Amino acid sequence: MDAVQRLLAIEEIKRLKARYFRTMDTKDWDGFRTLFTDDVEVDASEAFFPADHRGAPIETDLVRPQPDPSLRVKGLDRFMELQHRYLAGVSTVHHGHTPEIDVISADEATGVWAMEDKLRYPRRSRMREMHGYGHYRERYRREGDAWKIAALKLTRVRVDVMAG
Amino acid sequence: MDAVQRLLAIEEIKRLKARYFRTMDTKDWDGFRTLFTDDVEVDASEAFFPADHRGAPIETDLVRPQPDPSLRVKGLDRFMELQHRYLAGVSTVHHGHTPEIDVISADEATGVWAMEDKLRYPRRSRMREMHGYGHYRERYRREGDAWKIAALKLTRVRVDVMAG
Amino acid sequence: MDAVQRLLAIEEIKRLKARYFRTMDTKDWDGFRTLFTDDVEVDASEAFFPADHRGAPIETDLVRPQPDPSLRVKGLDRFMELQHRYLAGVSTVHHGHTPEIDVISADEATGVWAMEDKLRYPRRSRMREMHGYGHYRERYRREGDAWKIAALKLTRVRVDVMAG
Repeated sequence: MDAVQRLLAIEEIKRLKARYFRTMDTKDWDGFRTLFTDDVEVDASEAFFPADHRGAPIETDLVRPQPDPSLRVKGLDRFMELQHRYLAGVSTVHHGHTPEIDVISADEATGVWAMEDKLRYPRRSRMREMHGYGHYRERYRREGDAWKIAALKLTRVRVDVMAG
Repeated sequence: MDAVQRLLAIEEIKRLKARYFRTMDTKDWDGFRTLFTDDVEVDASEAFFPADHRGAPIETDLVRPQPDPSLRVKGLDRFMELQHRYLAGVSTVHHGHTPEIDVISADEATGVWAMEDKLRYPRRSRMREMHGYGHYRERYRREGDAWKIAALKLTRVRVDVMAG
Repeated sequence: MDAVQRLLAIEEIKRLKARYFRTMDTKDWDGFRTLFTDDVEVDASEAFFPADHRGAPIETDLVRPQPDPSLRVKGLDRFMELQHRYLAGVSTVHHGHTPEIDVISADEATGVWAMEDKLRYPRRSRMREMHGYGHYRERYRREGDAWKIAALKLTRVRVDVMAG
């Protein structure tokens, strides 16, 4: 690939992730679904356990005291089930920042994104609000003309919760 | 347009919106004014009414119970009046995220931006703080060498307010 | 430089700043150190004094009543000392937004970034939380193949603190 093709791929992958955030927060689940490969691997097992936060005392409310393997799934159907189970009826805001995209070949790339999310649960839930900060580490694959998310791992540096 | 011209236009439009946020938050209204076409169309009529938030119960404090047509204006002078009326004396933070820019031709483009804003009102105001999250949908036009915002519609997925 | 080289430099500088935020928040100080020139000039003297906030009443809790010259240092060793002194044991989140990068030559560039940071101090500190919003103004220099931060000035439009 030449420099222009690499720059175009980087811009396309930034847009892919932009649609990820936008379709999730506007509950456009049909649009959200199109952004992933069928064999997508999603790992949020450490997302509620700020393992990244090395060297500093953890002055935060943790949702999980340790990694949770049930938050690691393979396959788009299982991932969509997970999304529906955790986000049905939840008001969500997800923002992505400062992407670091590496184009490996014409059809493969990796990326790191900083993120912040803010979830508000329906009344009478055990949790009222969740507010997290962390990083996505991702793998992308081009299928036809479209870049898709093939793997996604979310870790957090900080998670705050407000009880319901 | 070739790929390089399209990439340059996308970068220029990202910078245009960067100046939009920076001049607004530093109260550089002269600089802010230069970023729009004279016939700019601004629609914030749904910005305080989270209409985007489909499918989930609205667990939030709304500033408006329904769209407000007085927040839809045409023309730069009227838009600047609106800005002054709503933001005079208000401390503002506006951040834009994950742009999706489509270059239509050498002189036309559209874009979607995720956004977050945080307003703090002067003491003795009816409102103390407003904290919103949403999306800008925009149209851009090139005039001479400069891309300008020709239309802007703001919707939100969540709005929180703190009374004064 | 031609347009493609300029676009590549802009993307490299965006990634440089992405690593700045990521290595700081994951306490990867060895990685953080590699992002600067040896003679880096860092000016945070106005970062806790929202001088940018022109024209609006300052409705905020200031950490400093006026600029603090002790927060202006020259040289990478002195900057790293400052980082350690202020951030040891502190949970940090730093996000950067909407960069405006100007490539001056093959080896020189400048940039402006909007930013937000959120610091949480260890228990029994005088401060519990600091939450800031502002702008970085930076100078970059290419050394070999790598762009580095040669100068950085942070100002803020808003700073909130929570006492411990």
